[in-house]
Amino acid sequence: MARRIIGSTPKLDGFRMPAEFEPQSEIFMIWPEYTGNWRLGAKPAQAAYTNVATAISEFEKVTMLVSARQFEHCRAMLPNHIRVVETTSDDAWCRDTGPTFLVNDNGERRAVDWKFNAWGGLVDGLLPSWDHDDLIARKICEITDTDSYRTDNFVLEGGSIHTDGEGTVLTTKMCLLSQGRNPHMSQEQIENMLCEYLGCEKTLWLTDGIDPDETNGHVDDVACFIRPAEICCIDTDDVNHPFYEAAKKAQQELALMTDAKGRKLKIHKLCCTKKTVLMENAETIDNRFSAKPRTTGELCIASYCNFLICNGAIIVPQYDDENDALALSQISDMFPDRTVVGVPTREIVYGGGNIHCITQQVPKI
Amino acid sequence: MARRIIGSTPKLDGFRMPAEFEPQSEIFMIWPEYTGNWRLGAKPAQAAYTNVATAISEFEKVTMLVSARQFEHCRAMLPNHIRVVETTSDDAWCRDTGPTFLVNDNGERRAVDWKFNAWGGLVDGLLPSWDHDDLIARKICEITDTDSYRTDNFVLEGGSIHTDGEGTVLTTKMCLLSQGRNPHMSQEQIENMLCEYLGCEKTLWLTDGIDPDETNGHVDDVACFIRPAEICCIDTDDVNHPFYEAAKKAQQELALMTDAKGRKLKIHKLCCTKKTVLMENAETIDNRFSAKPRTTGELCIASYCNFLICNGAIIVPQYDDENDALALSQISDMFPDRTVVGVPTREIVYGGGNIHCITQQVPKI
Repeated sequence: MARRIIGSTPKLDGFRMPAEFEPQSEIFMIWPEYTGNWRLGAKPAQAAYTNVATAISEFEKVTMLVSARQFEHCRAMLPNHIRVVETTSDDAWCRDTGPTFLVNDNGERRAVDWKFNAWGGLVDGLLPSWDHDDLIARKICEITDTDSYRTDNFVLEGGSIHTDGEGTVLTTKMCLLSQGRNPHMSQEQIENMLCEYLGCEKTLWLTDGIDPDETNGHVDDVACFIRPAEICCIDTDDVNHPFYEAAKKAQQELALMTDAKGRKLKIHKLCCTKKTVLMENAETIDNRFSAKPRTTGELCIASYCNFLICNGAIIVPQYDDENDALALSQISDMFPDRTVVGVPTREIVYGGGNIHCITQQVPKI
Repeated sequence: MARRIIGSTPKLDGFRMPAEFEPQSEIFMIWPEYTGNWRLGAKPAQAAYTNVATAISEFEKVTMLVSARQFEHCRAMLPNHIRVVETTSDDAWCRDTGPTFLVNDNGERRAVDWKFNAWGGLVDGLLPSWDHDDLIARKICEITDTDSYRTDNFVLEGGSIHTDGEGTVLTTKMCLLSQGRNPHMSQEQIENMLCEYLGCEKTLWLTDGIDPDETNGHVDDVACFIRPAEICCIDTDDVNHPFYEAAKKAQQELALMTDAKGRKLKIHKLCCTKKTVLMENAETIDNRFSAKPRTTGELCIASYCNFLICNGAIIVPQYDDENDALALSQISDMFPDRTVVGVPTREIVYGGGNIHCITQQVPKI
């Protein structure tokens, strides 16, 4: 059963997006292969994804989606207990192309299949084509037998939202009001869409993300709910750090907000890398006529906040940076009941995201 | 979990292939697309497969595997309650390319992933390449989280065997001793392989099938177990019918056999079509340099015996023939507790098989 639900919304039907810290049944990922985005034929990225998937799989079931071309190689690279299912994709960002799973109070699961246009479509999108990626959510719904709602007139990526599971959605204006997403809609209309499709009551709008060029400022590099009314937000006191301004501004904005239940938010600060992470050997990425090329030395959006919360653990990016250990320790303090696992992911940040961007959780029912 | 099990066999591990008439959890099929085998761009075949899948889905869950190219069309053609999962294939015969599922007494399921060489490999195989088809079994094991045994040195198609679930396997010498399968092995060695991998004690060898050219005589066009010690076998008294000789010979051979438990077999006769089914409009099939072309007027292997037993029902080929109703009535007498559903499948027989050939059951655990 993977029906399309027509003529209703999740909210009308009593469904809500649970918070990431609620119990999960499975994590989906997509095997990196696109040599127009990944260095050296995507081989270093495949090794990094393997490490991430393996780390998660110590705590929770993992399914890796992979093209027919890479099926045998991917199957051979991953541990046996990770499931590998053939699925064609344009690139490997399951947070953004996968479905947003929902639950209701009767223990049922549904999903939202958002229209996907590669982070900005013809305005400032990042892929030459995204027809395969726009089918990823549907295909995951088929694999998991999940009924879904499709938003044919509303573009969204999962990395641009976080929820607290209790009626609040957190996002950024930089992304959701961008010209490449839903320029036909007002902020209020977008807020209504979020609330209808995530089963929420209130939208908290940060102004900016830290990644204006690629994702147009996805919130998942800046802040996330760690439990109801408590938020992790990036922080640095280095005024020369490229994320300094956005971090301080986000903290100030969060300090003035209340959630859907009227609670003020407790903010937990999470460090940034000491050194910026800069692109290396961009010449090993395939040339593309259709997109702005990556260049050696350009700033990569290396945030420790792009971690995944899974059952019993937090899987955290590590950048071979002086602050790696501090980040792990701060996150451990935020999640005293979970194991915090660092995974080296410089190669993934070279591709434009990190652990949260490449994973998608299926809530437990 | 979809581990490869190394260094053991199903029999050693206490697993057996259940009979098709035992309870099932799901049927897998593969969407037809290969225009080198199917007429008119495979469109009539897709309609016929849709009818078969729909008929089965009234009784049991169905999963249709489909290439990325045909995903949207297939999804649109099939009822919503049928699951559609992307999987690349060379052609659409899930009986022969899918895994053979096994069960044990502890309610666990495993599978055999037989080496597949397109019905004869370089000797007399039917496809220009079969690398995708040889991965189908593995991919279904991944989708269903099933641990599997792989027979890298033993070629077999699921359509060449039937079991009674109680230690007996039924097959044909025409197929299993063919030069394109396992010419390095003696009949006794093949018998041992079957018993080890199907958890059986005894192999019953019919001499011939009715399809020497394509499948080299798969048993599933000739005879099958309908319950322990009872067999359905094709029959005709028309001495000019192309299947007359094989039908009578199979009946004579079966009459002399006893199963693994020492029981004689009760034979239930199933009619053949009154008229032979002959290929029509073969010129609408793509030319292929690598294979003998199909020709208009050639004999098609239209057997009513190529039915599927699923939960509560028998799904039976119908050929627009005078004997269609007789076949349904005879099968109803064989299965008094199941609904017998006829589905028009001339188009499928033009492609070289029928309902049993295009389905693969997953036993219930």
